[in-house]
Amino acid sequence: MTQPPIPDILPLTASVHASCRLAIAGCDLRELIEEFGSPLYVYDELTIRSICREFMAHFTRMYPNSSIEYSSKAFSNPAILQIIEKEGLHLDVVTGGELAVASAARFPMDRVNFHGNNKSRAELVEAVKSGIGRVTIDSFHEISLLNEVAAEAGIVQSALLRLSPSIDPHTHRLTSTGILDSKFGFSIETGAAEDAVQQTMAACNIDLAGLHFHLGSPLFELEPYAEAIDYVCAFAARMRDRHGLEMREFSPGGGMAIGYMRSQPSPLISQYARTIAQSLITACDDHGFDLPKLTVEPGRAIVGRAGVALYTVGGIKRIPGVRTYVSVDGGMGDNIRPALYDSQYEVISVDNPLDEACEKVTIAGKFCESGDLLARDAELPELNPGNIVALPSAGAYCVPMASNYNMQTRPAIVLLSVEGIPRLIRRRESYADLLSTAVFE
Amino acid sequence: MTQPPIPDILPLTASVHASCRLAIAGCDLRELIEEFGSPLYVYDELTIRSICREFMAHFTRMYPNSSIEYSSKAFSNPAILQIIEKEGLHLDVVTGGELAVASAARFPMDRVNFHGNNKSRAELVEAVKSGIGRVTIDSFHEISLLNEVAAEAGIVQSALLRLSPSIDPHTHRLTSTGILDSKFGFSIETGAAEDAVQQTMAACNIDLAGLHFHLGSPLFELEPYAEAIDYVCAFAARMRDRHGLEMREFSPGGGMAIGYMRSQPSPLISQYARTIAQSLITACDDHGFDLPKLTVEPGRAIVGRAGVALYTVGGIKRIPGVRTYVSVDGGMGDNIRPALYDSQYEVISVDNPLDEACEKVTIAGKFCESGDLLARDAELPELNPGNIVALPSAGAYCVPMASNYNMQTRPAIVLLSVEGIPRLIRRRESYADLLSTAVFE
Repeated sequence: MTQPPIPDILPLTASVHASCRLAIAGCDLRELIEEFGSPLYVYDELTIRSICREFMAHFTRMYPNSSIEYSSKAFSNPAILQIIEKEGLHLDVVTGGELAVASAARFPMDRVNFHGNNKSRAELVEAVKSGIGRVTIDSFHEISLLNEVAAEAGIVQSALLRLSPSIDPHTHRLTSTGILDSKFGFSIETGAAEDAVQQTMAACNIDLAGLHFHLGSPLFELEPYAEAIDYVCAFAARMRDRHGLEMREFSPGGGMAIGYMRSQPSPLISQYARTIAQSLITACDDHGFDLPKLTVEPGRAIVGRAGVALYTVGGIKRIPGVRTYVSVDGGMGDNIRPALYDSQYEVISVDNPLDEACEKVTIAGKFCESGDLLARDAELPELNPGNIVALPSAGAYCVPMASNYNMQTRPAIVLLSVEGIPRLIRRRESYADLLSTAVFE
Repeated sequence: MTQPPIPDILPLTASVHASCRLAIAGCDLRELIEEFGSPLYVYDELTIRSICREFMAHFTRMYPNSSIEYSSKAFSNPAILQIIEKEGLHLDVVTGGELAVASAARFPMDRVNFHGNNKSRAELVEAVKSGIGRVTIDSFHEISLLNEVAAEAGIVQSALLRLSPSIDPHTHRLTSTGILDSKFGFSIETGAAEDAVQQTMAACNIDLAGLHFHLGSPLFELEPYAEAIDYVCAFAARMRDRHGLEMREFSPGGGMAIGYMRSQPSPLISQYARTIAQSLITACDDHGFDLPKLTVEPGRAIVGRAGVALYTVGGIKRIPGVRTYVSVDGGMGDNIRPALYDSQYEVISVDNPLDEACEKVTIAGKFCESGDLLARDAELPELNPGNIVALPSAGAYCVPMASNYNMQTRPAIVLLSVEGIPRLIRRRESYADLLSTAVFE
């Protein structure tokens, strides 16, 4: 059962500390728990910066006129957005709330794109007034709504249309977004996309800058990108020929995967870049287009590996011949992904990462529900109450989907700087926070 | 496609208003949206009170020495807990956070029971110091922890032991709790329960008042209760004979179901009461026990029917021959149950509840994920942007599991009094709330 102690799904700076415990950015993780409490989410700045730079480098090398747009639904926090801004990325938001966080982080609004299948009038007003760079329109209702809102503001809003390319990306049914039977986008297949192009081009206060699609997430295969890019560019050529559409911008969405398990490598960023860039260059060549500006929208791939969840072990329940349950002080309240998507996670013992595994255990959360399991059949050294375990690859979609189920307070979040200095970027909720919106008679 | 406009899964006071729109407690639901905003959760006080009284009446008639303990994880809010307290119920909490809400509602602590599979030392200290009535112990670790904490406080804490009766209640795998392979309780089958009885009886600062088990939720069958009560009472008889256990209290948990769909009736409260009371009386008679105090722990059954979720329709996407998606302004952020458990909901048009259904539609949320669907194939009259739809049976586990996914603010909650007066009991979150725990440099 021997495995390398520092799998490459942990942040880049993970190491075994002089204390023989697991460390990130040189910080002993047990010491972080002692300082900031448990459970705790820890983000590694160096990992975020390195991955941003890898994205920028690979895409601009393969396709100079490209930009990387961080999809903030993966994790929206002012400190993280400030890092991403400094790395030169653009930003996706999907609600007025994400726009408010971007604004609090002083993200330049001309680099922000507003996505989502059902933006409200109020959200569009907020977006337009903020001077947002792009709005990605998702329904006919939104075409007229955005046109009205932009007219009221006296501007012409730059926008993209989200198309549905009817392509199955082979990911979880809950996160496949580009198939025909989807709530997202205008279907090319049914003719809705052509109608949308015409209506948007006719809308006086919208400038249709280009086209967008998104296949789903996480995508471990490259072929669906190639197939969809070819299909959407063929559509764009028809729209140019029939209606004079100029496709100045092109976004094949995000969905770039990360490894969650040691045994599950994801494609390299360079492979996503090569497939996407080559497919787009070929398609533009085939259809006689000038190369549009390319935007890709990674979320999970930017922050997923940088985040680690830390939990303290409580009760341990051995059911002979059946299973050993190790209960920890977090669970489905801070990470619903195992219950929701059957997501798998590795588990690493923080206190003795170098010890050989001696037991297969299930890591159970503390929430009052049987489905509250964080990891099944994790091979670990002996654990006792008070030990600390780490779940790698916890940087995306755990904190954003966290609830106060069971009136559990949501964990604190610490950012470990490139210099190895821990900084609280979100404080732990208090009982008072749980009652802060309650109205008493 | 004709269906009765007011199905009995809506609150008891549901009616068609003089405006021809759907009303609860005499309040026109569109007027409530206009006053309090959308989306909105509405709770009907009369329904909560009536169901509390039904539980009290049926159980005490069948078994005079019984108490009803509301499981607050179904919905924990001070105003709701105050109603439930006035109706004479007891209360379950599963975290320090739920204890804090009970305390804020001034719930008498001697009527509170602390559940959960992994209570922290801090939580046990809070519980013991508050003068909590019962702690339901779930692991060997907790026996020693509670004994220590009670000793430090200089008290003897009354407690129950949670047993695992290895019985499959035929509900969703994520919510089956009483099977052998469960993180909850001490298994009778493996001998762990007997060890736990001995250890707890030997703990000087714990008074073992009785036994508890919980099978899962929602349970539409009655037979698993009967089977488990018989099995646990046989165990209790062995423990009496071998170790002198006095079972003064007995709790067969909760799990009482409610109807979510018109076509899915749940057992009547009287049927649960009869099965549970008769099984316990028979088992006590068989094993020569005096009748213990009986406690049942409904959560969903108390508040589920009282709550209705209201949403405003936005974009509508018709994919001919495939599906019509009606997007609303809430979704998996305020109700994750369809995505998590494949839960089904009825949908009722608030603006024209009497109109005949003319279309089968899927109600999609506004969250940036394909799995964000609230109801599939709902048969509804024509809907247009701005219309309001109601999801009945939304009183339990929607609000408690709500997240800020996509940085969406969580909805406001209004309680409609018996007199028909709406009262805000939780205000809508603001963008400032989303940033209230963020720490800026």
